[in-house]
Amino acid sequence: MGHVVIDVMLKPEILDPQGQAVNGALPRLGFEQFTDVRQGKRFVLTVDGEVTDEVLAAAREAAEKLLSNPVIEDVVSVRAAAADVDDDQDPGQ
Amino acid sequence: MGHVVIDVMLKPEILDPQGQAVNGALPRLGFEQFTDVRQGKRFVLTVDGEVTDEVLAAAREAAEKLLSNPVIEDVVSVRAAAADVDDDQDPGQ
Repeated sequence: MGHVVIDVMLKPEILDPQGQAVNGALPRLGFEQFTDVRQGKRFVLTVDGEVTDEVLAAAREAAEKLLSNPVIEDVVSVRAAAADVDDDQDPGQ
Repeated sequence: MGHVVIDVMLKPEILDPQGQAVNGALPRLGFEQFTDVRQGKRFVLTVDGEVTDEVLAAAREAAEKLLSNPVIEDVVSVRAAAADVDDDQDPGQ
């Protein structure tokens, strides 16, 4: 069983009220080091079997057609994930 | 200027109606290869300067305290991102 992770973010020029709300709340909780926050969406698609190039191409097409609104959003990443996506904790990425 | 990417997903046992809606729509658009979809949140936090271990620790704490609801959500990833997060397109992850 494989997983494809798709990340969708608002385009940089589009106002992000959710991100601004988080950005306003962080200093009140003592987190002064962050200057901006943007909030987007993360999709995890499951496939039976391996994540082949065909699966990734289909996921990329689905991301453009269904998972994002190309007027205001960018698909920033479409990639195969480790089998257990909850272990996707590599701090180096 | 550095960026920290935080991924938050609903816990596997929590119902995900948004993911189910996407999962129901995919076959209607001709994407038959996906068996499940989960939808979560992706935050991009900006810091002046580099993403140090202290910044990552603060981001991890903010993720647990503010960006996720620990009753229903897991923080699946807190990591430094490339300077231009829109280029975060590594298909190997």
